Order: sequence, then structure tokens, then C-alpha cells
Amino acid sequence: MPRRQGTYTLFLPSEPSIVGYAAVAGKKEKEGPLGDYFDLCYQDTTLGEDSWEKAEARMQTEAVNMAIKKAGLSNASIQYIFAGDLLNQCISSSFGLRGLGIPFLGQYGACSTMAQTIALSAILVDAGAAAYCAAVTSSHFCSAERQFRFPLEYGGQRTPTAQWTATASGSAILGTHKRGAPVVSAVTIGKITDLGIKDAANMGAAMAPSAAQTLTDFFTDTKTAPEDYDLILTGDLGSVGTALLKELLQKEHIDISRNHNDCGNMIYDAKKQDVHAGGSGCGCSASIVCSYLFQKMKEGIFHSVLFLGTGALMSPTSSQQGESIPGIAHLVHLRMA
Amino acid sequence: MPRRQGTYTLFLPSEPSIVGYAAVAGKKEKEGPLGDYFDLCYQDTTLGEDSWEKAEARMQTEAVNMAIKKAGLSNASIQYIFAGDLLNQCISSSFGLRGLGIPFLGQYGACSTMAQTIALSAILVDAGAAAYCAAVTSSHFCSAERQFRFPLEYGGQRTPTAQWTATASGSAILGTHKRGAPVVSAVTIGKITDLGIKDAANMGAAMAPSAAQTLTDFFTDTKTAPEDYDLILTGDLGSVGTALLKELLQKEHIDISRNHNDCGNMIYDAKKQDVHAGGSGCGCSASIVCSYLFQKMKEGIFHSVLFLGTGALMSPTSSQQGESIPGIAHLVHLRMA
Repeated sequence: MPRRQGTYTLFLPSEPSIVGYAAVAGKKEKEGPLGDYFDLCYQDTTLGEDSWEKAEARMQTEAVNMAIKKAGLSNASIQYIFAGDLLNQCISSSFGLRGLGIPFLGQYGACSTMAQTIALSAILVDAGAAAYCAAVTSSHFCSAERQFRFPLEYGGQRTPTAQWTATASGSAILGTHKRGAPVVSAVTIGKITDLGIKDAANMGAAMAPSAAQTLTDFFTDTKTAPEDYDLILTGDLGSVGTALLKELLQKEHIDISRNHNDCGNMIYDAKKQDVHAGGSGCGCSASIVCSYLFQKMKEGIFHSVLFLGTGALMSPTSSQQGESIPGIAHLVHLRMA
Repeated sequence: MPRRQGTYTLFLPSEPSIVGYAAVAGKKEKEGPLGDYFDLCYQDTTLGEDSWEKAEARMQTEAVNMAIKKAGLSNASIQYIFAGDLLNQCISSSFGLRGLGIPFLGQYGACSTMAQTIALSAILVDAGAAAYCAAVTSSHFCSAERQFRFPLEYGGQRTPTAQWTATASGSAILGTHKRGAPVVSAVTIGKITDLGIKDAANMGAAMAPSAAQTLTDFFTDTKTAPEDYDLILTGDLGSVGTALLKELLQKEHIDISRNHNDCGNMIYDAKKQDVHAGGSGCGCSASIVCSYLFQKMKEGIFHSVLFLGTGALMSPTSSQQGESIPGIAHLVHLRMA
């Protein structure tokens, strides 16, 4: 049963575990440094569908089905699926998952969605409300570009601070404690933080303050420090946001430079793949957490990890109306029991 | 601590209670049969803001602030806020609630959002994960029309099956058991149901199958029948969807004709207000549940109520791509303890 720790952190004593996980990615992600970790990659990023949106929905179908299969479960054994994505009205999730027959709770956390869905799944399992929950999210470069920026055919120039939306999906199945699987030990749900950044081509800067806030809250609540963890993994601040996060935390005398990494900086090769400030999109951190991260934890490379999903809660409409970009960051403390 | 009952229902033995609630509405809603129940109504539906989207966000701010105040609480005593809306990227919620400083979990359930946010809030309170949670959603006729249908200035003709998006917001504060307050006794989270309806101007028909499914699941799980409840309140099927729901349930030998009502049929005067098939939008059921319903429960008019939030999980993009409209329905069993 969940237990509150400090003001913002929830400790999950029953050790809900990642009993299955899978990641699906596109061609460019396959060519990146983590390409070999993904379960399934598509050379043709339409996945044979007749729209980018349908392709993205299919990635969620594939990721969830694979994660359930790898967990040795069937759809009927999963009580709830928490899912969301960046598309208007979260259609990748509703169309990708409509055939599953699993009670569905749509989530919207922008690029923090993987952390949010894992957190809620873990809380429900810890509370005894579910034996198994599924968490899933996705993003697709082509569906995101035309919805948030320009039609691909326009050939718009990208600014140096822009991040590249990953074509990827990741899914994790949370269940009651299982030996040898990573467990969700605690979660810290973030508050909306808005320092007034208005440049929709600089999401990293908009999200860094929320990441700094949630991380500081977690360290305060748990009376721990960065050195107590093997890895602090944000997703996705990219290179610009990462530098800002470090700067903001230094003001609080918190130094994460030794053990921090960011999914946006990991998914592509910055020198060869021309992605400017790095990767982004719900699928970026989802596909890394649900492949590379969990695998390295099981291999004993990382024992205790803070995964911090960061999201920019804006829309093209809010930006056109002159609004700033509110950010959010949810933290999940993962460890090998 | 939540306890599973049957396949899909979660029983909440600690009786998490509605410790505060408030509803905000626009001019047309004020003129409807329930106008006197709303806490606050705006004659000018811009609320003095310079866009419809900002007006809608403001309604969420007002509804939550009033609900917190009526509960006798401060923002700091609320652990989580579950919020969502119909706008792309749920900007009414993120912009309306960014100043609260309450950990934020964005939800997307289309017009089922009020049931979804009450359900998750109640589960977290019952699990001991929070002492208090806030649930809120909104919709605005003008922001919805231009996003989902036509610019208002175009003056598009509405079909007879079309529903009128309510300009309204409702918020409920859930807390540990409180004497004299309605309690959330059980919740049933719905599965996505898609029978192939493609007419985006006939949402009631698209959502009726999911409502029938969730209601049937709940009756099966709890071994109860419609006559065990004082009111079965759906939101929002409108007149077309209501007729279909009754027809679908009759095939399962379930008769809800004696004690069913639908928020879409309650919010406007069908004869005088020219709303075709009734009201809709997240704010329709939210504002009725968080005013009329809770008040009538406290007055002893309704003792045991099934509130069933229904949502159509489509977007203009999915409809333009020829997709059908998946529906979802979440059930909350409310009663006076």
C-alpha cells in the first residue's frame, strides 16, 4: 500500500515490478547508438499504413502486444492500460489500443507520458487495485511535424534548439513483485512549472525548470542526493535543456553532472544524424526506458535509477495566442530489488 | 484499500468522499433547467479573456478554486489534481491549472473525463496515496466548434443528431471519509468499444455501445440490477444516444427506462433552446454532477447513483482519414453513506 514520504513523494513498499517491456522504433532510431536494443524496427516508417497517424497507432499496438507476450501474460490478465501520446485527442492510443479489450485510462503528459503511465500503473499495483497494468506511449516524427510545426513537404528550416521527434513506442507491464525484475520503488508527480519561455522550437528550455523542481522535491522528500543513484535519466531535454537543468540545479547546490544522461541525447548520434538539439517525443524516452534501461538494470549495470519524464504542455493554438510553455516532470525511482 | 469485485469493478471500502464541489457555466447553460444549481455563471462567455481557449481555461481555474474553498481546504492540502479537456493537448487544463502548485496528472477521456478523474481520485484516496485529490474538466461551445467542426463565423448548419457542446466546468474534491458527503463506493473503468459509427455529428450513437458495455459489466460484477439504484446518470449521450443505449441494454434484458437520465438531455430545455440532440462536452456532465447531482444526494433525493461518463475518442484527423469513432464509458458508483 502506497505511503507518503515527505511532501511530494509516494513510496511503494510492495515493490511493483516491470514484468515485461518492449520497444518499437523507426529507421533513423535504428541507425542511432541504441538501435540494437529495440525489439522491432521498421525501415518503412509508414508501417504499410496509409497515414502517419495510423502508423503511429500501429506502433503502440505492436509495443503493447510484445510487452504482454514477453511478460508471459494475456490481455485478460491486465486490469488497466494507461496510455497517451502527442496527437490531438490522443488518437494513437485510442486507435492503437481499441482492439485490446483492456480497461483504458487515457493520459496526457506530453513527453512525460511514459513516466506518468509507469507511475500510475505502479501505484495501482501497489494499492492492490490491479495485479497487472500496462503503460504505453508513442510518437512519430511525421505525424508530429505536420501537427505541431509544418507539413513535411514544406521543407521548413529547423532552428539549432529544435529537437527531433522520435518515431518510436515503448510499453511496460507492471505487476506484483517479481524476482529479477526492476521495481518501481517511489514516484514523485510533478507540478506545472512555467518560467515564461515562449519559443516552441526550444522545448528543452521550457521543460528544464520542471525537471529541476521535481528532482529537488524528490531529493528533499527522500533526504537523498544525486550520488545515491547510478543514473539520473531525463527524457527528453536534449542538449539545450540538459545544460539548463544542470545550471538550475547548481543554484540549489545539486550536482548531477557525474551520473546524468538524457534520452534526447542518447537516441541519435549528434555528430552524424543532424538532429540539432537531440531527440524528443513521448516515444523517445519510452523506447529507451523499455529497452536499453531495463535491460542494463537486469544486467546489473545500473542498480538504482531515477527516470524523470519531462513534458511541454503547450499546443500550436496556445503558442499562436502568445502563451508561454508550461512544463511538467514526473519522477519514477527504479531499482533492482 | 481498493478490492477487486468481479472482472472489471473496483470496490473502495474506505468510502472516499466528495468533500467539496463546484460548477461554473455560461449564459445558455444558466438559461437551462439547471441554471440555478451552478455556483457561478458568466453572461459574457469570453470571461473577459481574449480567446475562447483562455476563457475555457479560466473556467477550470474558477471551478477548482471554488471547490477547494467549499471543502475548507487550501491548495497545499491536495496531493494530486486529475484534469483533462477536449482541446488539443488539453490546454484548458494545463493553462487553467498551472498556477495551483498541485501535482498534476493530465487525463484524456473526451466527455468521460469527469468520471475518469473522479474514479482515479477516489482510488488514490482509498489506497492511502493521497488525503485529498481534485478532479476537474471543462468544455466551451466556441473553442470546441472551431476545433472540431467549423469556425463560428461560417454559420454551419447542424444536423438533427448533433449535440451542443456545453460551456461549463465542474470540479470535485475527493477526500477520506466524511459524514454527510456523497461517497465513491465503486468504479468500473471501461474498455474502448467501436461498432463502426463514422458520423462525427452523431456522437451519441458512437458512445452508446461503450455505455451499454460498462453498465453490463458493472451489473455482472456486482450482481445488481438497475432497480437497485435511484438514478443511472449517463453523460452525455443526448437524445439519440439515450435511445440507442436503452435498445442495446434491452437486448441484454436490462431495463433502465424507469431511473435513467442523461446529462445531455438535462442541461438545456429541448423545446426552447434549439440544441438538437442535447448537450455534450466534458463540462456538461461535470457541471451537472458537481452541482445538481451532489446537492440532490445531500438532500436525500438520491441515495445510490451510477454516474457513467461517456467519451468519443476521435479527432477531426481520424475522421478525415475515414476512421470510425471509438467510444469509452467509465462508471462511478456514488452513494450517501
